Amino acid sequence: MKGLAMLGIGKIGWIEKDAPKYGPLDALVRPIVVAPCTSDVHTVWEGAIGERTDMILGHESIGEVVEVGELVKDFKKGDKVIVPAITPDWGSINSQRGFPMHSGEALGGWKFSNFKDGCFAELFHVNEADANLAHLPDDVDPVAAVMLTDMTTTGFHAAELAEVKLGDTVCVIGIGPVGLNSVAGANMMGASHIYAVGSRPDCARVAKEYGATEIINYKQGDIVDQILSKTKGAGVDKVLIAGGNVDTFAQAIKMLKPGGAIGSVNYLGSGEFIKIPRIEWAVGMGHKRINAGLTPGGRVRMEKLASLVQTEKYDPSKLITHRFEGFEKMEEALLLMKDKPSDLIKPVVII
Amino acid sequence: MKGLAMLGIGKIGWIEKDAPKYGPLDALVRPIVVAPCTSDVHTVWEGAIGERTDMILGHESIGEVVEVGELVKDFKKGDKVIVPAITPDWGSINSQRGFPMHSGEALGGWKFSNFKDGCFAELFHVNEADANLAHLPDDVDPVAAVMLTDMTTTGFHAAELAEVKLGDTVCVIGIGPVGLNSVAGANMMGASHIYAVGSRPDCARVAKEYGATEIINYKQGDIVDQILSKTKGAGVDKVLIAGGNVDTFAQAIKMLKPGGAIGSVNYLGSGEFIKIPRIEWAVGMGHKRINAGLTPGGRVRMEKLASLVQTEKYDPSKLITHRFEGFEKMEEALLLMKDKPSDLIKPVVII
Amino acid sequence: MKGLAMLGIGKIGWIEKDAPKYGPLDALVRPIVVAPCTSDVHTVWEGAIGERTDMILGHESIGEVVEVGELVKDFKKGDKVIVPAITPDWGSINSQRGFPMHSGEALGGWKFSNFKDGCFAELFHVNEADANLAHLPDDVDPVAAVMLTDMTTTGFHAAELAEVKLGDTVCVIGIGPVGLNSVAGANMMGASHIYAVGSRPDCARVAKEYGATEIINYKQGDIVDQILSKTKGAGVDKVLIAGGNVDTFAQAIKMLKPGGAIGSVNYLGSGEFIKIPRIEWAVGMGHKRINAGLTPGGRVRMEKLASLVQTEKYDPSKLITHRFEGFEKMEEALLLMKDKPSDLIKPVVII
Amino acid sequence: MKGLAMLGIGKIGWIEKDAPKYGPLDALVRPIVVAPCTSDVHTVWEGAIGERTDMILGHESIGEVVEVGELVKDFKKGDKVIVPAITPDWGSINSQRGFPMHSGEALGGWKFSNFKDGCFAELFHVNEADANLAHLPDDVDPVAAVMLTDMTTTGFHAAELAEVKLGDTVCVIGIGPVGLNSVAGANMMGASHIYAVGSRPDCARVAKEYGATEIINYKQGDIVDQILSKTKGAGVDKVLIAGGNVDTFAQAIKMLKPGGAIGSVNYLGSGEFIKIPRIEWAVGMGHKRINAGLTPGGRVRMEKLASLVQTEKYDPSKLITHRFEGFEKMEEALLLMKDKPSDLIKPVVII
Repeated sequence: MKGLAMLGIGKIGWIEKDAPKYGPLDALVRPIVVAPCTSDVHTVWEGAIGERTDMILGHESIGEVVEVGELVKDFKKGDKVIVPAITPDWGSINSQRGFPMHSGEALGGWKFSNFKDGCFAELFHVNEADANLAHLPDDVDPVAAVMLTDMTTTGFHAAELAEVKLGDTVCVIGIGPVGLNSVAGANMMGASHIYAVGSRPDCARVAKEYGATEIINYKQGDIVDQILSKTKGAGVDKVLIAGGNVDTFAQAIKMLKPGGAIGSVNYLGSGEFIKIPRIEWAVGMGHKRINAGLTPGGRVRMEKLASLVQTEKYDPSKLITHRFEGFEKMEEALLLMKDKPSDLIKPVVII
Repeated sequence: MKGLAMLGIGKIGWIEKDAPKYGPLDALVRPIVVAPCTSDVHTVWEGAIGERTDMILGHESIGEVVEVGELVKDFKKGDKVIVPAITPDWGSINSQRGFPMHSGEALGGWKFSNFKDGCFAELFHVNEADANLAHLPDDVDPVAAVMLTDMTTTGFHAAELAEVKLGDTVCVIGIGPVGLNSVAGANMMGASHIYAVGSRPDCARVAKEYGATEIINYKQGDIVDQILSKTKGAGVDKVLIAGGNVDTFAQAIKMLKPGGAIGSVNYLGSGEFIKIPRIEWAVGMGHKRINAGLTPGGRVRMEKLASLVQTEKYDPSKLITHRFEGFEKMEEALLLMKDKPSDLIKPVVII
Repeated sequence: MKGLAMLGIGKIGWIEKDAPKYGPLDALVRPIVVAPCTSDVHTVWEGAIGERTDMILGHESIGEVVEVGELVKDFKKGDKVIVPAITPDWGSINSQRGFPMHSGEALGGWKFSNFKDGCFAELFHVNEADANLAHLPDDVDPVAAVMLTDMTTTGFHAAELAEVKLGDTVCVIGIGPVGLNSVAGANMMGASHIYAVGSRPDCARVAKEYGATEIINYKQGDIVDQILSKTKGAGVDKVLIAGGNVDTFAQAIKMLKPGGAIGSVNYLGSGEFIKIPRIEWAVGMGHKRINAGLTPGGRVRMEKLASLVQTEKYDPSKLITHRFEGFEKMEEALLLMKDKPSDLIKPVVII
Repeated sequence: MKGLAMLGIGKIGWIEKDAPKYGPLDALVRPIVVAPCTSDVHTVWEGAIGERTDMILGHESIGEVVEVGELVKDFKKGDKVIVPAITPDWGSINSQRGFPMHSGEALGGWKFSNFKDGCFAELFHVNEADANLAHLPDDVDPVAAVMLTDMTTTGFHAAELAEVKLGDTVCVIGIGPVGLNSVAGANMMGASHIYAVGSRPDCARVAKEYGATEIINYKQGDIVDQILSKTKGAGVDKVLIAGGNVDTFAQAIKMLKPGGAIGSVNYLGSGEFIKIPRIEWAVGMGHKRINAGLTPGGRVRMEKLASLVQTEKYDPSKLITHRFEGFEKMEEALLLMKDKPSDLIKPVVII
């Protein structure tokens, strides 16, 4: 089979591989819609997860089941499915401890385009199919649904990590596709004021549609100062980090109330330390909680997110700015993601 | 001063009283908008809280500060304020235990028209003014804001008690003014499918506007059967009880998934027992949690709710179906609440 | 193979069966220590779970691995293992929802002597061996360890369900082997006053050793009166229910503070309703939470409990009052459990 | 009245002041047992909270009520009381938000020897007496009880912040008087393995008595290496920080499992940043939570801690290594705390 692979750091190309083997609990899936992710870009061009050779890229997809192992009960050939980016080993120690996304090891639930070949292929492998696939509901557009697999779940998780409550004032740092979903997640969990930090007009527009009450443009001054000014010095209840870098946490701490919380879903690709400013962290006494983690995945997560689309509580299609048609367009879509033109939020490839 | 009082069980009338005394932490407030509550009706005509003599009614009001005690710092004569129905003694044992609404004793935070004169008067007393009053923001309509003091906070609390999460399927039993807010609260906390149980068309319309995805009319068959049918036998993640009686809990248990939760804010005025069906409660083994309690009150709660109005995340004015103008119209409004015509959700009196 | 079975309601006997088949994730285990459980007695002589024919009994065992499926990684023939009474399907919908004990359906994680043959046999089947077996540590006595599989985990779960906190005042109703573990669990989670309700002297002695500060003998008066008298009318923060029947909940509600919680692990075998007294439940407004459920199971749970034995924080051997040696003694041990002499807490059979 | 004061940074001395004024909710208390705290030492000799002039020191005391304001109900002249180091304004915004220790501002609940005169005086002032004093039970030794006011509550809070669960493996960094209480707190919340990091033999002995299973001596090698070696590379579930400095957090992160949590109660007196190592924090994806905050205070907290002493679940007297008698010995006790001889855990002064 054919796939678009990372040949090595800095290089991509089409390769031929055998179709993946699958075990009794697993499935083989053919992608019908895929989307490239910023982390594919980091993986290839920044070497974020280290060297990989001929590893097929891609972890966001809607697919059709092609084969299932003999112990798979709920899925069969031909089923249309949502395939989450995170596919845990559900019986693992860390899953039992409450952290399936870390099954096996930290981040061990993230397998596609990390430990194994991803979905930019004619076929790909899904472990524990009954637990990790979700049926695509008839009334959900597969193109919109591909956003659920990573962007939506990751963005929402920032709001979950920060435990956004009814009437909370929230700052969301970063309004790329993940951050936009953090805005939507905060809004859906009951935030009132949502200050969304970003500058690109298209993202700002979607942020507002998703519930942001104000856009904070970092080009117009220090964002901490802007937030403190808008909150009359009080700061915010919660900060969601969906962009920036290791230094973003210091800003978050400075704009947070005592007893507030940070929820971060940002993959920190470089820098030796995240530096928490001692004074503004109230000399370690201020109950400013720092929560950061990989999104949950798996079937139930996808079903819950899909139910929000079905009930029109949430519209992931707002994120999609560029559409490609045809299997071979994966490459162009990925390169677009790398180039990141100013009007790009998220491209998809319909196969 | 003049006030509309419960003279005894079954009897109301206008009485004259001295203006309330107030201590160093307290305030005297003049109502500018009030609303009668179903519990005023229960108090008078059903004797729900026992005999009371010449007790001024009313616990939902927006007011203007007339006097403050010498230790009050944040409020002064002339300030427009939101006065929550629940005004805890914040230093009490139960407040420190995390339950300020039960300060002193169970339900001890509910003082107006319960332990002391209420707001259907020319003046009324507010304990711990700095902690229990909230400034009415300039951009919030006082007529809409009077809903926040009880209807909104109580309705939302059902969703909080049940811990509604992103993508939960929820059934809300009862769509009077509290239940409508339970719908809104569930929706604002991220529910997807919201089944709202009720029959009155005006309520059903507002329920849909507040996020209900389907109306379940109990006149069209057993509600448990209807819910199980709509969920293909799975039941719902959460049931919010904002109406019915002691028998409603059995229905809720029957439609709940294992691991689901009930959040009830219904004042149970009669019946000896709430009966939990043993089999459907999974012989006491199913983790179907039962949480029920009085709404939180106080200043911060009101500020948070008001912020949801300010940011246009929530519109309490949808609840108001009848408006009266003039102090003396309190009586008419209360009698309307007693009569409960089919087009009534909530009346207000603008003074 | 040979096994001690329920032949039908009210009848037990030794039967011959084929060794169980096992799948790629499963294991076959030979018991080395087993214990009969009160629920075996209920199953057979009260028909608590309905009719069963030739079903091998027993769900508490320490064993030795005899065979493993080809996908099992962490266990091999000859390994000594702790086998929890509850062995979830870890990828199931309810497991992903946070309730693995309800995998498949309510109580679906309870398989032995319920849906499939139990451990009173020469061999028994364990599903998802890597996730459901735990290695027996060298420094843990297998005889003591058999208590962990059900008695300890179930008893502790009552304290978890009630969320016992440092300095809480707790009442534990029932001091059979499960209730004694609820005492131990409450004590290990930081309870101060622990009132243990029971009457048998041997149980009372162990209750004190496990941290009970006072024994409440129901033969000496109404237990609610006794608790309220001892707490000067305040009641307790938490009530753990590990005995009694459907009527026990009314007592629990009556002795609970506003904002308190019930944690129940009692299997309710009969009665149509659990009746919650409306007045003492503070007319549904008192935040007296009711949590009740089946114990968690699986590997990590067993490892955590075993670590408490290894570090001498908890001694399960106090529960064992009767020891039998030899496979065929299972019958005698089970009948002893049925007869329940006054000096019995828990018998074990060493094979 | 006379008091032992900080005259300025680096200088202490006895001064004369008027007795404090008190308001209607407040009390004047005469100390009967006091203890100096390391933070008194930091305050004076390191200028940790900035310049102070003629501020009376001390925030740990058992006292006798001398005067009460006219609104105080539960305390009267002559009552023996436990006075917590943290005495919140219970109606404040942050108290209502769930963080009374931050009433007014971050750390605003810490008033004694910070914002106002402390307890090293003939008389001292207590705000909101009904909410902030606790009756000293007859059966609790006042000398032991003075530990509860700060050492116990602070130490236990680390275990609460990290949410120690039954069977957790815990590392406690620092075994001074606070860290010893973190050991005790972790043990009382159900930890199994408790690795206590420290070197002084007297502290190590008490750590073992309080539940530590192993002492990790940092003089014998890197503590991260030691912990990883003892846990076979797995790391610990929770790290409690009760000593060290801003660099201690990096060690904590490195020894923590994915999904683990830090609970820190260490006052961080110097250093610009707390540095979280990016790689070991799993690139911001590992759910290694960081919780740090000032202890709760107030009446109920003290009552709960006292109940643990009454029921002999916890013995604070183990912490007391040096006893002084006489008011004027406060100076000697404070200087001893400054000198910190190797056999010192905690001194008390009995007046």
